[in-house]
Order: sequence, then C-alpha cells, then structure tokens
Amino acid sequence: MGIKGNALFAQSGGPTAVINSSISGAIMEASKHNEITAMYGSINGILGVLNENMIDLNKESKKNIELLRVTPSSALGSSRHKIKNDEEYEKLLKVMQAHDIRYFFLAGGNDSMDTANKVHKLAVSKKYDLKVMGLPKTVDNDLPVTDHCPGFGSVARWLALAVRDAGLDTEAIYTADTIKVVETMGRNAGWITASTVMARQKENDAPHIILLPEVPFIQDKFLATLDKVYKKLGYAVISCCEGLKDEKGEYLTSSKRAVDTDRFGHKQLGGVGETLVSIISENLKIKARCDKPGTIQRVAGIAQSKVDQEEAYTSGAMAVKHAVEGKSGLMVTLVRESDNPYKCTTGVTDLGNIANKERKMPAEFISEDGMYVSDKFIKYITPLIGGALPEYARLEKHFIAKKLLK
Amino acid sequence: MGIKGNALFAQSGGPTAVINSSISGAIMEASKHNEITAMYGSINGILGVLNENMIDLNKESKKNIELLRVTPSSALGSSRHKIKNDEEYEKLLKVMQAHDIRYFFLAGGNDSMDTANKVHKLAVSKKYDLKVMGLPKTVDNDLPVTDHCPGFGSVARWLALAVRDAGLDTEAIYTADTIKVVETMGRNAGWITASTVMARQKENDAPHIILLPEVPFIQDKFLATLDKVYKKLGYAVISCCEGLKDEKGEYLTSSKRAVDTDRFGHKQLGGVGETLVSIISENLKIKARCDKPGTIQRVAGIAQSKVDQEEAYTSGAMAVKHAVEGKSGLMVTLVRESDNPYKCTTGVTDLGNIANKERKMPAEFISEDGMYVSDKFIKYITPLIGGALPEYARLEKHFIAKKLLK
Repeated sequence: MGIKGNALFAQSGGPTAVINSSISGAIMEASKHNEITAMYGSINGILGVLNENMIDLNKESKKNIELLRVTPSSALGSSRHKIKNDEEYEKLLKVMQAHDIRYFFLAGGNDSMDTANKVHKLAVSKKYDLKVMGLPKTVDNDLPVTDHCPGFGSVARWLALAVRDAGLDTEAIYTADTIKVVETMGRNAGWITASTVMARQKENDAPHIILLPEVPFIQDKFLATLDKVYKKLGYAVISCCEGLKDEKGEYLTSSKRAVDTDRFGHKQLGGVGETLVSIISENLKIKARCDKPGTIQRVAGIAQSKVDQEEAYTSGAMAVKHAVEGKSGLMVTLVRESDNPYKCTTGVTDLGNIANKERKMPAEFISEDGMYVSDKFIKYITPLIGGALPEYARLEKHFIAKKLLK
Repeated sequence: MGIKGNALFAQSGGPTAVINSSISGAIMEASKHNEITAMYGSINGILGVLNENMIDLNKESKKNIELLRVTPSSALGSSRHKIKNDEEYEKLLKVMQAHDIRYFFLAGGNDSMDTANKVHKLAVSKKYDLKVMGLPKTVDNDLPVTDHCPGFGSVARWLALAVRDAGLDTEAIYTADTIKVVETMGRNAGWITASTVMARQKENDAPHIILLPEVPFIQDKFLATLDKVYKKLGYAVISCCEGLKDEKGEYLTSSKRAVDTDRFGHKQLGGVGETLVSIISENLKIKARCDKPGTIQRVAGIAQSKVDQEEAYTSGAMAVKHAVEGKSGLMVTLVRESDNPYKCTTGVTDLGNIANKERKMPAEFISEDGMYVSDKFIKYITPLIGGALPEYARLEKHFIAKKLLK
C-alpha cells in the first residue's frame, strides 16, 4: 500500500478540452483514500512546485471540482517549462519533501512524462517515498503505447464539426470562394489533421484532401490531385497539418515564423495554410482562402467528446488508484478492447516508455496516394469523437425543366 | 391581395448559421397560402435564375425543410454575382416570367437588397406583377434600419464561446504563449469583433483589447495599452477585425506587415492578426500567436443562437406574409421593443433604404479609448446571443503557505 501523505496535482503543456476532466477524476478518487491527506494543486505545472505556488484543493467547492469535468483549458494553469538541470530536479524534490507530498500526479504529454520519470527516479535514488503517476494528455495523440490520448477525441470532434460547416460553406459559395484550406495543429504527427475526415457524412463531402506531416509534400502531385477534385466538384476543401514538410524534411512555412521556438526547442509552426493558398492561386489560378482556428480547436468546451471526457476522468481516477496501491513511475494508458461496440479499459506503462517519444500516424492509417486517410483509420477514430454529428438537412434538389435555356 | 403564381426563394452572399432558418420559415409560411402555387429554389443565388437552375421545393421532404432550421450554410447555394447590366436584369425577369414566378424572396445583405430592389423596379416598369421581398441576412450586422441582422447573433455566440475558451487557454499557458490575437471577420464594420466581448464572464477575462475598423489603429497607443494589460495580468487576449485600418485609412494588412516570403518565394498574405503578432513580438519582445477561425465562425451549427435562429425563421415567414398581402420592394426588419425582457418584433423598410448602404458601429457603442466596447453595446448584444454561455469551473485558488521560499 502507498504511504500516508499529501497529494500534488499538476497540468502540463498545451491545454485541452478534457485535461480538467482528468484532474477532476484524480481529485474525486483521491478524496476516497485515507492514504491521501491534503490535496494540493500546482499552479502552472512544474513551475508551481519550483516556486512553491500551490493551492489547497480541499478548499475548493465540490461543485467546482465536478464542473472541472466539463471545463476546458487547464484550470490549475500549465507551463512548458523544461527542467534545466539536476539542481532544479533536486529543488522539486525538496519542495515536495517540505510539504510532505507523497503522491505526485502530472497530466501531460511526452515532455512531461520525461519530467515525471526523472522526478520518480530521483525520489528512488534519494530514498524518498514518492509515488509518481502520469496522466496521459495531448490533443496531438502522439504518445506511444496508449491506444489514444485524452484530449484527442475532443479536438477531433471539434474539427469534424468545424470542417463539415466550413465544407458546406465552400460548397454553397464556391462560385466566389472556390478552394478552402483548413490548417490544423499537429507538430510532427498528423492525427489531428487526419481526424477532419469525420466531417464527411457522404461521398464528395469535405475534406477532399488531407495533407499529413508523415507524407512529404510534393507540389505537383498535390496540384494534380486538387485539380481533379476541382474539375469534378467545382470546389475543394483541404485539411493540412501545420507541420507539413517537403521532400527534404523542411517545414513548408515561411522562414520567418520557423525562427520562433518554444522552450523545449520545438519550432512554433504556423502559416502552412497561407502557403498553400499562395501555391494554389499562383498555379491553378483559382481563388483559395484559409481558416486557421489555432488554439480554439484544442480547448473547445462546446465540442467535448463524451467518450474523451469520460476516458480522461477515468484515467485520472486510475492514476490515483495505482498510486495508493503503491505503484510509481507509470503512466496510465488507454487500452482498446473492441471497436464495435467500442470498449476501452486502462493499463499502465513505464514513464520511460513515453518520455520524449513521439508516435506518428502508421502507414496503414494513410491512403495509398498519401493524400487522405485509410478506412482503417476511420474505424480507429470513429468511436473517439463520442457519437454522430448533429443531423443537417441536405436538399435532394429536384431540378425543374428549363424553359428558355435548353 | 397578392396575385396567384409561383414563388422563388434564393440565398445570396456569405453563408451564415441561420440563413437556412430564414428560408425554412419562408417556405413553411408559403405553403399555407393559396396564392402561392409551386415553390422553387434558385441554385446559387441570382445565378440560378440567370441559368435557369431551379429546384422544386415541394419535392423536398417536410423533414428536410424543418431540418433547414438548424442547418448552417446556404442549402440552396449562394453567390456573390453582381448583376452586370440592364440586359442581365431583363434576363432575370424573363426567366421569372417564363416560370410564372410572382413571388421572389431573396435572403442577403446590402448588395443583394440592391439587386432585389432593381428587379422590383424593373418588374414595376414592365408592368409584370411580381412581389419582391428581402430577407435580412448578414453576419456582419451592417444593414441600416433593422435593429440587427439574422446571422449576427450566431456568429457572436460562436465567438463568445471560442474567445472564452481561447482566453482560458492563454490564461493557462501564458508562461509559454503570452499574447493571443483572435482575428475575426468584418470588413468595414466592427460588429463581429465587438461581439467577442460576450466571452467575458468576469473582470480580467478575455478579450482585453478589441480593435475595431471604426477606430484608426495607432501602433504606439495600441502597444501602450497592451503593455498595461500584460503588466497587470501577465498575458493578454486581443480581438481584432480583419478590416483594421491605420490613420490614413489603409488596411493594416497591406501597409504595416513586414512582407514574409516563404521558401517557394510566395508572398505570405496572412491577415491582420499575423501583422499584429509581428508588431507585438518585434516591439514588446513578448511571444504572441494568432487564431484566425475564418469561415468557421460564420457557419457554426453548433453555436446557433436560439434567438437568432427564431428571428431568422420569423423574418422569413413575415416576408411571405407581406408579399401575399400584396406588398413588394421591401425588406423585413427586426424591431427591438425592449432589452430586458428582450422583445423583438418585425417591420419593413423599402429595399432602397438598405441597398448598398453599410451601418458601422456608432460611437456610443465604442469605449472612450477606442480599444474596447461600451456598456451600451453590451446591453445591445446580450440578448442576441441567445442565453448565457455554459458554466465553467473557476478555481478559487487558496494558496498554501510557502515553506522554503519566503
């Protein structure tokens, strides 16, 4: 059994629609266990520990903790702080020791799991009894081992709704705005971009082309495919990943923007959509425009996937259960038992299996021509968005006979 | 009473979340009147008349017509075709005559009302008994006479939700992504941008600065205001209109943007949001990023404002009622009877009062410093978004005492 002491909860990396649901699940579960005495929340991820900015979660109303389930973004605040050196790790541990923290729950992606893993190892080497558990979180869906990541189902649902609407928009006004590019998030992995396929309700629906970072962008091939769609439908909608790269592996974005880097040294991307707009209008002489929803897509409370929200909650609760059973150095994983009916349980994996690793879209999830997803991917993602999209009217369009122009 | 004959329905200009609701209301009303025999839908606005591409709406299922109420975008297709000359107007009338169209209902903005007005006048001069009625439609909310326009309440609701979420995102991850710019639609009128104020649930919430095209952008003043917010909160969220102009009346996109060129040598024609990002990062040396939801904001079915949807439906129905009573050359207007409780009825105005006219934000709706909206505007817009936003958790954050750092 786990030692008796205080628990600390922290959120890391980019906010999502359900990272609060994970924390809500963890807090609700923790409050059931006598091993856990006080419950603290670290403000702005690991920074809150370093700066001793921690709040008392027992003083929050139960209603607030429950509302966290449906509240997007990171209520505790987040950060992308990368622990600089051993000294900072030791400081982290000292703060935890000073506050008798014996349970540390960190929700985050592969960078955060590396941090969690190092804290875990340091505690072991210092013989400080600390249970460290990772809660999977990332809209990017790029963590290995786990079938998928809490956060992904909701960004996928949001994009399914948004690309369906944006597609109907282009279909309606194609005589003026002919080609639409929707730029999605996703640094090196195309999961988010691929998820836009869920916008498609029937053949010929948007998106018509899906450009993934796993597939090198070849301009001529892209233009030829686009031209084919355009000649068939009179318009086209393209989903593209912000991290699209060319055959040399270089980002398609402008050199200026690529200079921006975040604190982990990742290039801050943006602008691929506008680049494609230029390529399309210069080469095909058709009007194109770009929608780039940016951070709106990842934290949309209105489009929370019910499945995603529940899995986030459960993964948080399971992390606590494992910790009070005495486990440490693990991340909770989602394990798909079956597709239809969809059934998903949880498992665990060593933090070291996740730390700094990135899972890209496998070849079997990408269409043969590299510009769409496969049926296998659709089977994979369908249950994650939490149910069918609301029904819309689609007119049958029975044309009347012409009388003047024949 | 109106003459007996066929009715033609058309949708014009940019799609919205409720333009189908307007048409649904008109069709449902038309089906109650014996004066109207067949009901046709023009495909792609006025182009459908010119090309005789019209469908038989009686052959659509009742379920489909009812579903139109909740279906975004323009189900009949739209266009931005501007009638070129008298010849084209005469052609329009000839097609209507050939199909015994005696009722013409056009949903659109100020350009479309100009077209409708000219068709009306031509019919009068040719002594062809045609009842022409305009259905107000524009997310831009820039039509005169009417209190507001169907379509506006829904884009406002969508942006309220999106900017609230994007604001919480920035608030959470401000240590990495410090300033967020959300670029909204609205070429010359700031109504849409102003509506983002509805994201604010309490003091210090996003948006912190609202940049309207009615107020010339003065870089130093903007930077000073932003710096003040940044120093107070540590982050800031700015809503800006795509049509922001400088003191010379030039669009910010063309004048101020440091022209980026991507690796292909294409000019990056990003919008005003990216321009502001450059201005902020170059001058204040703070990291900024831009969300530009583009067309997604105007057609979001998920964020339809109930009030907007009902008013769109009613305005469609009223257009038909007036027409069968024998009226023509009018647009239905929304008349606000009271703010609280909100009560709105309909009226009519001559198409000539709307045609090609543009209503900008009045000075009384803009804050004194020109970088926010006034309380009067908040009173104006509150009922239009159709009810409060869903409740979110906001942690009270009771900090625990520091033990190491004091």
